[in-house]
Formats: sequence, structure tokens, C-alpha cells
Amino acid sequence: MPVLDLTASSVDLTRTICDIPSVSGDETPLADAIFAAVDGLDHLEVTRHGDTIVARTNLGRAQRVAIAGHIDTVPINGNVPTRDVDVDGQPFIWGRGTVDMKAGVAVQLKLAAELTDPRVDITWMWYDHEEVAAELNGLTRLAASRPDLFEADFAILGEPSNGQVEGGCNGNLRAIVRTSGVRAHSARAWIGENAIHKAAPILARLAEYRPREVEVEGLVYREGLNAVRIGGGIAGNVIPDACEVEVNYRFAPSKDGAAAEAHIRDVLAGFDVEIVDLAEGARPGLDAPLAQEFVAAVGAVPQPKYGWTDVARFSAMGVPAVNYGPGDPHLAHHDEERVPLSQIEDVERGLRAWLTGA
Amino acid sequence: MPVLDLTASSVDLTRTICDIPSVSGDETPLADAIFAAVDGLDHLEVTRHGDTIVARTNLGRAQRVAIAGHIDTVPINGNVPTRDVDVDGQPFIWGRGTVDMKAGVAVQLKLAAELTDPRVDITWMWYDHEEVAAELNGLTRLAASRPDLFEADFAILGEPSNGQVEGGCNGNLRAIVRTSGVRAHSARAWIGENAIHKAAPILARLAEYRPREVEVEGLVYREGLNAVRIGGGIAGNVIPDACEVEVNYRFAPSKDGAAAEAHIRDVLAGFDVEIVDLAEGARPGLDAPLAQEFVAAVGAVPQPKYGWTDVARFSAMGVPAVNYGPGDPHLAHHDEERVPLSQIEDVERGLRAWLTGA
Repeated sequence: MPVLDLTASSVDLTRTICDIPSVSGDETPLADAIFAAVDGLDHLEVTRHGDTIVARTNLGRAQRVAIAGHIDTVPINGNVPTRDVDVDGQPFIWGRGTVDMKAGVAVQLKLAAELTDPRVDITWMWYDHEEVAAELNGLTRLAASRPDLFEADFAILGEPSNGQVEGGCNGNLRAIVRTSGVRAHSARAWIGENAIHKAAPILARLAEYRPREVEVEGLVYREGLNAVRIGGGIAGNVIPDACEVEVNYRFAPSKDGAAAEAHIRDVLAGFDVEIVDLAEGARPGLDAPLAQEFVAAVGAVPQPKYGWTDVARFSAMGVPAVNYGPGDPHLAHHDEERVPLSQIEDVERGLRAWLTGA
Repeated sequence: MPVLDLTASSVDLTRTICDIPSVSGDETPLADAIFAAVDGLDHLEVTRHGDTIVARTNLGRAQRVAIAGHIDTVPINGNVPTRDVDVDGQPFIWGRGTVDMKAGVAVQLKLAAELTDPRVDITWMWYDHEEVAAELNGLTRLAASRPDLFEADFAILGEPSNGQVEGGCNGNLRAIVRTSGVRAHSARAWIGENAIHKAAPILARLAEYRPREVEVEGLVYREGLNAVRIGGGIAGNVIPDACEVEVNYRFAPSKDGAAAEAHIRDVLAGFDVEIVDLAEGARPGLDAPLAQEFVAAVGAVPQPKYGWTDVARFSAMGVPAVNYGPGDPHLAHHDEERVPLSQIEDVERGLRAWLTGA
């Protein structure tokens, strides 16, 4: 079993844990190593739930903060093991997971071991299956079996945010829009009814749609409405009787799920619309006192988070949550995924400063 | 091996050969039976080329007619063996192949055996792999290896035509129209460029298109232009960078392939269009003297053939060709495929009358 030395630098720890492959579904070796590294520490109460590991201080502090990071990655594509690279004179660690989000996890692991006397109680959470279906997500499953572990006054998710504080997240809706027709041999098309042709106005409406920018608690969330998949037709000589357009709507956290659904049904009025997935967003949560202290301590200018992240799970459980981690989210899942060493160190410094009150 | 009794009625022969499954690629048992049934006949010179069988009279007649039928069917769907059914008081044989086109083949087999002294020389051709890719087609392969066997003054293809004479056929063009964009996470759609949205005007043009009706040698050919397949997108959270629309254009035989291609490129101007399949149509061929005699002898009012058939192969080799066979082409490939007994008998009578000059 690989051994994690939590006294190493967070940069070295990032290299080590990135070089332990942990594509969703195969997190056990990394989860084993994390468990072994923290289980012996006196100041932490460590429990394991599948490949999700929870480590809590119990210092009787007035407030508790949850700090979480997922340990899985999207599939490796020739980009493990990591390499040290230089881009525009700046040193980076290159490889799968460096951005999303093992550098963030490395910082958390190091601080979990080091901070025996933080000014708030901390619930560290390292979890599996974030990059796949929601029902597999380690946090989802833990919230069902052990909701008590989520009790906190504030939560920080180490998702890549370029070392900035990104508040809340957009909601996410997926819908299937269907047209139907009548199948016929294409040599006698007039007997049939072409379902693909009927999809023309769906694509036209989506192409013409101008997404909104919505200000929520001082942050501007940019929405998006897109066809992400289309399919129809069965053979080169058959008039198609069915066509499906999958639509993805990213909506500002000022809207709840019902409002998002109503908007989509309005835009696509006259068509058969089925909502297949709906995750509400999360308001920035920056009005929470702990959040304001945190932002001040790390010296950040809060930004909106566009992508849906697990902050929404905390938010839904009544815990205000923000994203704060090293790495450029645009490089997440990218084959050239790479994190600047300076951001790893900045985030480590920021978290330590706030948690120790130094 | 099943034995074919060519002295049986063409209706009985239809039942027998429909009950010998011969889905494209599995024609050998039926080809064996046909070969065995005609190989011993003194008035025929029989050759076999894979599962294609050619039987020729060599009577030194001034003119030669090719009469051809494919022996394969599309896949069986619980509709073999055949059944006798009654529809609106009319007796039918129901089952796969009854329309497309074993009733036609049955009539041809019966007459091949019976007509020892026809007034024209006859080249009977029963061939495989008509329902699949053109390069597998028994006639295509035979035309490459033995073009001499196609020498004829006129050709009759037994494709279903409701016992009417259907002249020529529309041409058939398939094209792929592609749009491209830039992939991005759908949470940050503005970084990408949506290739599916860019397909909106393609579908709009196809939906608005009004197909023409074109008169050729007195027959009116109805054209058609349709999207037959569409596909694009890779995941529910990715802005798609590619979309493909497969377009099928059925064009009147007054146009050659180049004119058809030019028309498609004109309709879809501004888009990336790749022609992936192009089969020219066939003019009706009804101005040929033998064709006129034939139409008069069978007492038919010629109609245009909309679907592409192998008459175009004869036409391309300089042999005027028509479709003449029992069965409603709308029921070809249909799970309720069925042929009225009366049409089988009519076609048998028509062909016999013309070939014997009776």
C-alpha cells in the first residue's frame, strides 16, 4: 500500500496522491492510504464509509466548519504519472487530478494532520465517486446514512477556483425534447412525416436564445441553455419517426428548480419536454458571518461558481458553502490538466491562516 | 435440400420459396434449390456465380430480353412461414418476401421452365444480396465479372409494382452535412461554440423544401429531400463540437448525378456537404420498341417507379428496363407484407402472353 507522509509539503503530497490512480470506481487504494495516514492521529476522530473518509476534531469549539474534497478523477489519458512542467516561466505539476482536485485534497490532508488546535472544530471529508452519477457520490450516500456528520456552520469545498473564493453554484437541468413523425420509405417520403425536420424550430430557438446574467448576493451568475446531444433516424432510406434533443440549462441560484423547469417549458413551448435531471444551485452563502471572516482572512474577492459542485449538497442541508481550491477550472478534465505550485501554496497559507486565526 | 417443383402453380411456388428463408447473406439454400430445379432443363444454359444463377435460352432469336429477380429478403420478423390470409374478401399470401420479391421470382421460375420456345431469347437472372450494400449485390458483381451476360435489348425486373409496369426509377443521393464548433464544459458554454445549434438552418431549409414533380417521357416522378439521420454531442455536460445530418435526395431520372449533387450543394450552400452515395436513376425506357410491345401485351398503363431499383444497373449498361411484378411496394419490408394471389396470376399471364406472342 502506498504510504502518505503528511509532513511532506503540500506540493509533494499533490504529486504523491496524483500518482495513485483513483478514477471513479477505483478509489480504494487511495482511500486506504488516506485512512492509514489520518487514523492514527490523536486529535482526529476518523470514520470510514466505503471509500469516503471523515476525520473530525472534537475540541468543543463554538463553531464547526466542514472542509471536503473528492478523491476520484475522470479517466486517465496518458497523463499519469505526473510531471513537473514550466509554462511561461511558472512551475506546474502536470497530470490527471492535479486540478480536479487532488492538489486541494493534498492541502486538506496536510492541514488535517498539522492543525491540532484550530480555532473552529473541523470536519474533514474526503469522498469518492464525484465525477459520475449523483447516486454514486460518496457525499450523497453519506448524507443519507449519516446526516449528523454534515452538521456545520460553514463548508469549504476544495474544488479548483484558481485560489479564489467562488461562491455558490448555478443549478443544472437536463431535459429531453422529443418530436415524432411517421416512418416511411424515403423513396415515398410523402407517405411519412419527418421527425428530424420537426426539430428545426427547437434548434432555432436554442440558437437564438440569449442567456441571462443574474446578480445574486453581489455575484453575477452567467446562465446557459444548450443542446448537448441530438439523435434521430434509423437508416439511410427511412423517413425518421423520432428525434430527441437533449438540452442542458444552467440557471442562476436565484431560481429554484420549479422556476427553472417553467422557464424551459416556456422556451420550448409546443414541444414534448421531459425533465430528466434537475439539481438546484446554491446561493453564494457569503452573508454567513464565518464566510465573511473566511473571505477576509484569505484576502479574496469572491467570484461566482458557474459549474454545479457539491457546495449545493451542503447548501441544501442548510450549510452555507463556498469553493476554494488551487487550479484553473477550465483545465479540469483537460488532457493538459496542470496546477501551478504557487496556487497550492497560496491555498495552504490561506486555509491555515484562517483556521489558526494567525 | 428443398426441392422446387416448377410445374406447380406460381402461387404454390411462391409459398414454397417464401418458406425457404433467404435473408441477405443466407441465400445459399434457396440458390441451391433454384439451381437444381433449372440445371437439368434442356432449353436452358445454366451458370452459377456464387448465389446468383443465370439461365439463358440460345434459340438464335433476333432479340434478347433479360428478366431478373433478387432472391434475398430483409430480415424475418415472425412472418415466416407464410400464411394464407383474406383481406376484404381477397385471398393473399402473407409473410416475409411475398412482396419483395419472391412472388415475382416464382412467376419467373415457372415460366423459365415452361417456355421452351419463346419468341425472344431470354436471359433469366436470379440474384443475391439486393437488400444490402451495393457492392455485395449479385448483379453488381456479375456485371463486373461477366458483362457479356447483360447483353439484351430490354430488361424486366420483377420488383413489386402492383402488377403494373413501372418505368425507370428515381436516382438516389446520400450526403452528410457537417457543422463544427468548439467543445467546452456546458457550465461555461460561452467558451465553446455549439455545433448542434449551428445545424438549425440545415433542418429549417430541409423542412421548408418543397420537392418537385418532374415529367420524364410522359411519366411524372416525385422527388424527395429528407434528413434521414442526425447525430451530435458526447455528454450531457459538454458543448458539442460536431453535428452530422444525413440527407437523402431522391431525384427524377431527368437529372444525372452531377446535376443532383449541384442541387444539393445549392440547397445547403454555406455548409460542409459530403456526398457519400450517389446512384443515378433510370429513364423510363418506354420508348424502346420492345418496351412498347411489352406494355401493349400486358395491357398496362405505365407508372413511374419512385424507389431506386436495379433497373438502373441495366439502364447504365445501355439496356432499357422496367419493373413488373406482383405485390404492393408499400408493403415491401413491412411486417404485414402480403401479396394478392390475383396479382401473381396476372403477372404470370402477362409475361407468358408477351413472351409467347400468344
